[in-house]
Amino acid sequence: MGERLVLHEFAQSGNCYKVRLTAALVGAELERREYDIGRGETRTPEFLADVNANGRIPVLQVGDRFIPESNAACFWLADGSALIPEDRFDRADMLRWMFFEQYNHEPNVATLRFWLAFVGEAGLSDAQRAQIVPKRAAGGAALKLMNDHLATRPWFVGDRLSLADIALYAYTHVAEEGGFRLDAYPNVQAWLGRIAATPGYEPM
Amino acid sequence: MGERLVLHEFAQSGNCYKVRLTAALVGAELERREYDIGRGETRTPEFLADVNANGRIPVLQVGDRFIPESNAACFWLADGSALIPEDRFDRADMLRWMFFEQYNHEPNVATLRFWLAFVGEAGLSDAQRAQIVPKRAAGGAALKLMNDHLATRPWFVGDRLSLADIALYAYTHVAEEGGFRLDAYPNVQAWLGRIAATPGYEPM
Repeated sequence: MGERLVLHEFAQSGNCYKVRLTAALVGAELERREYDIGRGETRTPEFLADVNANGRIPVLQVGDRFIPESNAACFWLADGSALIPEDRFDRADMLRWMFFEQYNHEPNVATLRFWLAFVGEAGLSDAQRAQIVPKRAAGGAALKLMNDHLATRPWFVGDRLSLADIALYAYTHVAEEGGFRLDAYPNVQAWLGRIAATPGYEPM
Repeated sequence: MGERLVLHEFAQSGNCYKVRLTAALVGAELERREYDIGRGETRTPEFLADVNANGRIPVLQVGDRFIPESNAACFWLADGSALIPEDRFDRADMLRWMFFEQYNHEPNVATLRFWLAFVGEAGLSDAQRAQIVPKRAAGGAALKLMNDHLATRPWFVGDRLSLADIALYAYTHVAEEGGFRLDAYPNVQAWLGRIAATPGYEPM
């Protein structure tokens, strides 16, 4: 590689942890720069102009270029490694789970964790409070779909750990901070254990 | 290829159109099977068991295997073609825009189109009606970010059309059906014209 890698992050974010876990598993060294999202540090004119016009973290800096979107940053880090399947179908199937994660899982499981464990229920707006019940249902449906998928296989895609597992692990393993009960999903619990036992694993 | 390709779809969905446009541009032939989502045809026990446990279209069937998630299906079709950049950074950057599309663009631009042009405002729930204003703002922010990005370049990634453009084109070119005004985004309008002028282009 050779180029300097800097992770612009909020360390407690599962989306940022994904990138760190991928880096650990492929042996890439990351400098880390922390932002206080509660104080708007990713919405400053400098951040929007230089790092990410979308005002979000994580962003992976590669030399003097920037990759926003957690799953895209993971893909860059893992490109050419065993974390991305060589088989064409499996590679697309890996992306299928990563898009599922960002569309069906993260907006429910991660958002409830952020609202309940970081903002606190008293600090929520009425509009946010009205979304707790539908997000609880949608997050539970995502966890059930994962649990059903894992009934007959150890990993999400093929027969080994891939970025699909890493992407889904990040917020699933802390889902109880958002009020989800993981003991309702025993196959998910067993899979969480397999990931944590992977050589090179690093905790959040 | 050789394997039979079947697109399980609702033709008016931008997510389904993405897959057809990608297939057209790479010269892949798709059988098409239409589902009436208004009548719950993607929530039947058969569909959930055989096609997609997540109850959504599009799903690309490759032989007897299935790829849900529109952008993953596009990736399978385009894998090995010029629609996916060979350069490692550009490939991740393409995925960055595809994740942006599913997280920041589709839930706002596509959802408002579906609510206003397909369901009709009178058929919305109170909870949906309460989300029109925030989704209008978030969709406008996504279109502005695209417009700013296109101020200095013809395509989203590198110097040619990629899956990033196709993913973002699908719902952007029909955004006015959801009440967005595209004349506020002249760089986006010019880019829409470039895509429609691409050899092999097929309309929705």
